[in-house]
Amino acid sequence: MRKLAVIGPGLLGGSIALAVQRIPGWRVAVWARREEAVAELLRLNVAQEASTDLSTVAADSDLVILCVPIGAMPDLAEKLTQILPAKSIVTDVGSVKGPVVKRLESIFRDHVHFIGSHPMAGSEQTGVRFARADLFEGSVCIVTPQRSELEVIGTVSRFWESLGCQVRILSPGEHDDIVALVSHLPHLLAAMLVKTVQDQQPVALDFVGPGFRDTTRVAAGAVEMWAEIFGSNRVALRNSAEALIEKLREFMTLLDRASPADELRMKEILQQAKAGRDRLRPNPAS
Amino acid sequence: MRKLAVIGPGLLGGSIALAVQRIPGWRVAVWARREEAVAELLRLNVAQEASTDLSTVAADSDLVILCVPIGAMPDLAEKLTQILPAKSIVTDVGSVKGPVVKRLESIFRDHVHFIGSHPMAGSEQTGVRFARADLFEGSVCIVTPQRSELEVIGTVSRFWESLGCQVRILSPGEHDDIVALVSHLPHLLAAMLVKTVQDQQPVALDFVGPGFRDTTRVAAGAVEMWAEIFGSNRVALRNSAEALIEKLREFMTLLDRASPADELRMKEILQQAKAGRDRLRPNPAS
Repeated sequence: MRKLAVIGPGLLGGSIALAVQRIPGWRVAVWARREEAVAELLRLNVAQEASTDLSTVAADSDLVILCVPIGAMPDLAEKLTQILPAKSIVTDVGSVKGPVVKRLESIFRDHVHFIGSHPMAGSEQTGVRFARADLFEGSVCIVTPQRSELEVIGTVSRFWESLGCQVRILSPGEHDDIVALVSHLPHLLAAMLVKTVQDQQPVALDFVGPGFRDTTRVAAGAVEMWAEIFGSNRVALRNSAEALIEKLREFMTLLDRASPADELRMKEILQQAKAGRDRLRPNPAS
Repeated sequence: MRKLAVIGPGLLGGSIALAVQRIPGWRVAVWARREEAVAELLRLNVAQEASTDLSTVAADSDLVILCVPIGAMPDLAEKLTQILPAKSIVTDVGSVKGPVVKRLESIFRDHVHFIGSHPMAGSEQTGVRFARADLFEGSVCIVTPQRSELEVIGTVSRFWESLGCQVRILSPGEHDDIVALVSHLPHLLAAMLVKTVQDQQPVALDFVGPGFRDTTRVAAGAVEMWAEIFGSNRVALRNSAEALIEKLREFMTLLDRASPADELRMKEILQQAKAGRDRLRPNPAS
């Protein structure tokens, strides 16, 4: 029987705990900072074991997953170095990898194997009450080894695969550039779109259709978490935002000039975007 | 028995035809340009009557709805003035109202009552095979009278209400400003977001999660239709796009400076956007 220690009782931690309960040969313990969170975990049957004591949860585990906001990870890592036996394996679910991996590796050093993960699942919902055992099925999980041993990369990758993820390996920096484009920029745009309508003509929010609702869904996400993500990936996010603004301005110039060649070019751009959107992997079952 | 003439066999025209078939006291005829479209309408039971002959479909109808792209409306309106008896009522489903209403009113003059409509339903899907009788249930329909008689406004409004719409009355100009913000700008952003990723780092499209998928869903919409919509509402769209770019730049400045006051302000902005998003009317059943 292997033991998984999930550090943090949110949507992702809770969903991992629920998913692993379905896999024979694993048991799960979840750590939460607050007693009320522990009680909720047990009440919802998210874990067989839950505690506010990090040592009880993690000391004898075969794999530890940090599922707390990235700003809370270093403190917990410091504590884990005291608790975990040598050669333990730790991973995380943070949405930014460069600064996180660097910081955590400097804490864990050679004592513990740390390897970053980013399962690209979740939603604008937060909290363990939205946890689902099938949250990861069909989603991509990016694993970001820095100087990790192949065996450890294999262990962590197989773990995510057992939850239904498609695992892709990237360096922490490659990861951050990619998620700036496909996750952080879309989130920022969604928020700025709502804010633009609020400031320009708030009454327009009474007239939204399903398109606006979908385009802005992620703007309902947890504010503290997203502010932290944006702050941790500001360079890549700024580059993405500037590239988008340039695209927008190019398009507006075509629209304003509106020569036959401009109109043709506009349609070409929209057609390329449509083709790109049409080719996306289908949504995992939800 | 009243007769509805639906001019155009697409997703909206087909859905209106299906919805009206459920309402006692109405029969529906649909006009399509091509014989194959007529055959498909009859095969799918979208209408009891369908024809490529405008006169057969429209001459004895009590209400005519133009469900063709806005660029095709003036020609059809010219033909309808020859066909329809005086005081007939005509509406449309176009996504832009200012230039459309002006042009159609100049064609219909005093002979036919024209009043613009914009049912804010539909999706990125096109074609009658996606038509649904419940497409309009719970959606907003904006009706844009210019100099229409109250009785006509009432007739058209009650028609949309019978399809499950919530009717709101706006002037054509007010309509265009509002849809630039909540429909045309979101569409343009979705397309530019896909295009940005394609140009910056196309491999990133293999890593998208549900957030990117939702944020860009509308970019899969019909290219010709959206190019036409953007072109017909370019001034309002440009203003909305500029307002959004300004918001983005403000946010990036806060993110770059990152003083404690800047971080607080960032969270405030995200919180306001979240609150706005949380307050949206729920999605109609889909």
